[in-house]
Amino acid sequence: MRRKPNADQRRRDLCDAAIELLAEDGARGLTHLRVDRRAGVADGTTSFYYQTRSALLRGATDRVVQLDVADFTAAMNEAKTATDNKTESLLSRLAEQAMRTGVEPERSRARARFELLMVAARDPELGAVFGDLMDRFVAISEEAVAQLQPADRPPDRELIEKQAFAVVTFLGGFLFRLANGLAGLDSAEQLEGYLHGVIAGVAAEHARIPGKGGRRATRA
Amino acid sequence: MRRKPNADQRRRDLCDAAIELLAEDGARGLTHLRVDRRAGVADGTTSFYYQTRSALLRGATDRVVQLDVADFTAAMNEAKTATDNKTESLLSRLAEQAMRTGVEPERSRARARFELLMVAARDPELGAVFGDLMDRFVAISEEAVAQLQPADRPPDRELIEKQAFAVVTFLGGFLFRLANGLAGLDSAEQLEGYLHGVIAGVAAEHARIPGKGGRRATRA
Repeated sequence: MRRKPNADQRRRDLCDAAIELLAEDGARGLTHLRVDRRAGVADGTTSFYYQTRSALLRGATDRVVQLDVADFTAAMNEAKTATDNKTESLLSRLAEQAMRTGVEPERSRARARFELLMVAARDPELGAVFGDLMDRFVAISEEAVAQLQPADRPPDRELIEKQAFAVVTFLGGFLFRLANGLAGLDSAEQLEGYLHGVIAGVAAEHARIPGKGGRRATRA
Repeated sequence: MRRKPNADQRRRDLCDAAIELLAEDGARGLTHLRVDRRAGVADGTTSFYYQTRSALLRGATDRVVQLDVADFTAAMNEAKTATDNKTESLLSRLAEQAMRTGVEPERSRARARFELLMVAARDPELGAVFGDLMDRFVAISEEAVAQLQPADRPPDRELIEKQAFAVVTFLGGFLFRLANGLAGLDSAEQLEGYLHGVIAGVAAEHARIPGKGGRRATRA
């Protein structure tokens, strides 16, 4: 199998078509032939690049993760270059990105991500790919909440981990709602308000009962 | 088509088999014949009771919702009969029920519920069934947070709606994690701690910026 010069672009196009199909009809709607037709390529093309269903699912997962990581990286960079309100800006960026899940193409990507996450629960290889993504999501959430810690005390690592777990869990529930057309919120500002509430509330609860509920939001 | 006396039980058995298959292999794994084999009945039985795929999905959804509503009702009744710590008990019951999503048969039901929720996003009839379930989830969450309001002030309806939205969203994210084998928490007590934090934090944020973020957690 020789690689054409445009093989990487071709693979990306096929994976984007696979993501659309996953979003529209779930894992059940994903077949090699439907990807060919959706991408507008000759029948058999997808089977050439992804010989098994497993390889196709892995390709779509890698593409989703690549786009997610690009978004995370952009949010980090924007937050770093922000000059005013710096302490709040990473959380703002995360809230803005989350709200975009209500519109295309992010909505399809989110729906495909949830479909693939459910497949990954019974597929260790996909599970490992998502495990890495989750670790990044936890890391960026920890950075976002770390920016909000009071400056007059040394950072409490356990508290930051709890707050990040709460942010990841709340955002996960919110994204599932948005991706599935359940009512969300009207603005990123509103979502940020909820996230601030969650972060502050976990801190208050932690101060009341330190240690209770402490658990890293990493995979099992 | 004549109804046998045990038709209702037979339908329940078929739907329970369908839930197991949805949990194991997703919507892709659900076929009439596989339900027959899983339920240990003659080939064709499922097609007799549920003539279309749509009818089978509706049957499985109704069964999931019936079991969920029974759990909600049990939580309400337990909370009502609790004599001590009454103000916290409905939230405790919700936290305990949520933790059971980590073990069978609740885990399979939760996985099937998420699969069906994703199907429902593109199927208005299933969407309506889940809409009713979501409304009940919101209502029980509102009752749980209403019990936690300070006794010395008149209840703030807008705040209760915001807090219930946050509880529903957080629990949704948590259940998705548990159902898919992502790390959760070690105990219902820990989960309840997070929920208390979320509820208190939303109240603090609401006091700071009343009105902002107000939105009922009902369907779109």
